Amino acid sequence: MSGRHGLFLTFEGIDGSGKSTQAKRLASALQSAGHDVVLTREPGGSPGAEEIRRLVLEGDPDRWSAETEILLFTAARRDHLERTILPALGAGKVVICDRFADSTRMYQGLSRGDLRPVVDQLHSLMIGREPDLTLLIDMDPEIGLSRAKGRQGTEERFEDFGVDLQRKMRTGFLSLADEFSQRFRVIDGAQPMDAIAAEILSLVTGALE
Amino acid sequence: MSGRHGLFLTFEGIDGSGKSTQAKRLASALQSAGHDVVLTREPGGSPGAEEIRRLVLEGDPDRWSAETEILLFTAARRDHLERTILPALGAGKVVICDRFADSTRMYQGLSRGDLRPVVDQLHSLMIGREPDLTLLIDMDPEIGLSRAKGRQGTEERFEDFGVDLQRKMRTGFLSLADEFSQRFRVIDGAQPMDAIAAEILSLVTGALE
Repeated sequence: MSGRHGLFLTFEGIDGSGKSTQAKRLASALQSAGHDVVLTREPGGSPGAEEIRRLVLEGDPDRWSAETEILLFTAARRDHLERTILPALGAGKVVICDRFADSTRMYQGLSRGDLRPVVDQLHSLMIGREPDLTLLIDMDPEIGLSRAKGRQGTEERFEDFGVDLQRKMRTGFLSLADEFSQRFRVIDGAQPMDAIAAEILSLVTGALE
Repeated sequence: MSGRHGLFLTFEGIDGSGKSTQAKRLASALQSAGHDVVLTREPGGSPGAEEIRRLVLEGDPDRWSAETEILLFTAARRDHLERTILPALGAGKVVICDRFADSTRMYQGLSRGDLRPVVDQLHSLMIGREPDLTLLIDMDPEIGLSRAKGRQGTEERFEDFGVDLQRKMRTGFLSLADEFSQRFRVIDGAQPMDAIAAEILSLVTGALE
């Protein structure tokens, strides 16, 4: 996994786990160390995918069925992969992505357990690519939720679920970390932010060597 | 295929073949005969699918890759099926749809022949449903093209292909009619409009009995 061949990193975790903050800190640290870094996020991350993001996340929560939502997320991911991620990896850059396919496996799988096979088949048919390394920031959902509520945003559909669902999500992410143990690293999100940032930087530096 | 269980009819054909006109005439004729009819079209046909339609059909032709486009069409079709087609069929109505999955098989298959398996897998995973009867209005592409150019519209992406591609499309639709010969009926689009309408009404009346 040398820098020349690019490195594809993703952050996963429940709302308020500090993913986005840590993704930004990692990007800065790697840039300071001389790496070419692309910081991106899902859903979105390319002009077309950002338009699909708006279509999915805004409006009535019952606007789309779970199946249609998965198709739209997969369309956005395909665009993001083609236009942003793969070109950057091809140019030897480090791509840091805030959420990727694991979030779809988790959220859609939780809302409708029978959909996980559909998510997996769509992924293998239209996406295929997995991250080289996935950083899961694991934390107590009550802390995560109070942090998430402190933020502002119009995209509340996925954050207005309460602590009970957040608990299920935490369990769901941990079980994905087991399922894909080769690329997942679980970070203890209860640590101070600086300690989390240092642990992540050390893991990624190891992967870049 | 009794009226009580609904009947799902689709129109297919190259641009300018008169599909939309004939779909409207058929809807009026069936309504006059006392049937409950839902006239719809793709891409679109439900509020969500119409929004996806705008996303796909407007803007730069290179805006989406063929793969992303297929995913967006499939998302729109899933919404259309769930929100418009299946509820109407469940209520025993006749659903007349201007274009459906055969158009995706045709257009995406023509632009990138290797994509037909992807289209088929997506269809069987996320859509499943086929029409009870598909009316293909077959006609000389030069006539079709001159008719299509006589119309106005902002959605020119799929109509600006020239007569050569229209010829390939005609061949493509005819080969789909062979592949799905049980549900396809090929209508000679060179006949006068009234004769075409009468032939279609007779075919559909047969299917409704």
